[in-house]
Amino acid sequence: MDADRTAALIGFLALADRLKHIERRGETAHPDGTSRRENSAEHCWNVALVALLLHGEMPEPRPDLGHALAMIAAHDLVEIEAGDTFAYDEAHLLTQAAREKAAADIVFGILPPDLGARLRGLWEEFEDGETPEARFAMACDRAQGFLQGVIGTGHWRHAGIAEAATHGRMAPARAVAPAFEALIANLYDRARAGRMFAE
Amino acid sequence: MDADRTAALIGFLALADRLKHIERRGETAHPDGTSRRENSAEHCWNVALVALLLHGEMPEPRPDLGHALAMIAAHDLVEIEAGDTFAYDEAHLLTQAAREKAAADIVFGILPPDLGARLRGLWEEFEDGETPEARFAMACDRAQGFLQGVIGTGHWRHAGIAEAATHGRMAPARAVAPAFEALIANLYDRARAGRMFAE
Repeated sequence: MDADRTAALIGFLALADRLKHIERRGETAHPDGTSRRENSAEHCWNVALVALLLHGEMPEPRPDLGHALAMIAAHDLVEIEAGDTFAYDEAHLLTQAAREKAAADIVFGILPPDLGARLRGLWEEFEDGETPEARFAMACDRAQGFLQGVIGTGHWRHAGIAEAATHGRMAPARAVAPAFEALIANLYDRARAGRMFAE
Repeated sequence: MDADRTAALIGFLALADRLKHIERRGETAHPDGTSRRENSAEHCWNVALVALLLHGEMPEPRPDLGHALAMIAAHDLVEIEAGDTFAYDEAHLLTQAAREKAAADIVFGILPPDLGARLRGLWEEFEDGETPEARFAMACDRAQGFLQGVIGTGHWRHAGIAEAATHGRMAPARAVAPAFEALIANLYDRARAGRMFAE
């Protein structure tokens, strides 16, 4: 690996470090009983863990786990420039695609062209959601976000979000496989029992 | 997926959330110029990103990237019970293996037996360091830890660690492939130039 390529990778990694400072709405529960918002780097690891646990439940032919894990590691990198978009912020959602595309030009442009194209390709595949791996990764991503609402402190209620408003977002994840349906249905039961949605 | 299995997975994921509260010595740089210790969940995502960037530089036959990413996602889960062991804390290192084995019994024991065995197997493979994927994952893990020292605020100096004390830990990572040698040598240059090691 020549000096320019090495320096480009280090520059990219120094920038990618910022994903640890992009806050999401979902909260993580501290063992002391408090909670705080999780960040997108933590989220990316957690989505990978969900993928590891659920992959064996996927019907044959199973998506390629390694390809899904690569996509999961790369899927939020544009947030370094674009920030996280809350799933229920409709005004912000309207501009999300344009903001993220501009961010992708910056973030992936720091890499040597071959690696920039590789990571951008993973991000675009995730966003397009058309391959079996992208659909599996999307389901893991949404299940993790929903889980965080349940094990955190019920951020839907605090954000004024009723259960019905979550159905459209969660339906595609539930449809990916019966295991996701089982997992997400259980989480809805817990959220209802804990009165975590806005009334 | 039956109700017991679903509940076991959710219980495990609620426990795994604690990895976001296990602090490491390495620091992450906030865009505002401050820094804070990173946690093990952030670290796991970052190691996956290093693997994604460096995999194409590995000599043929390349390790299986997907298998390495699965190992990386699982490699620090025992810290939920055992805590992180600072790489240069010799007294603590002596008891690390025993503490982590006891922790593994607890953490992986929460999962259904097939999944517990699968994740424990990934952790043990990483720890044993004998497969090409485990060696690649180890090199990514150590390179990321070292990088964090450079882009954070030079924790070696604050912890009283001289450069020579880091050589034994970094040598096996440098030996995995020329790309790791190039990356880590560049990071040493930066650390020396920034006077990040203790004198």
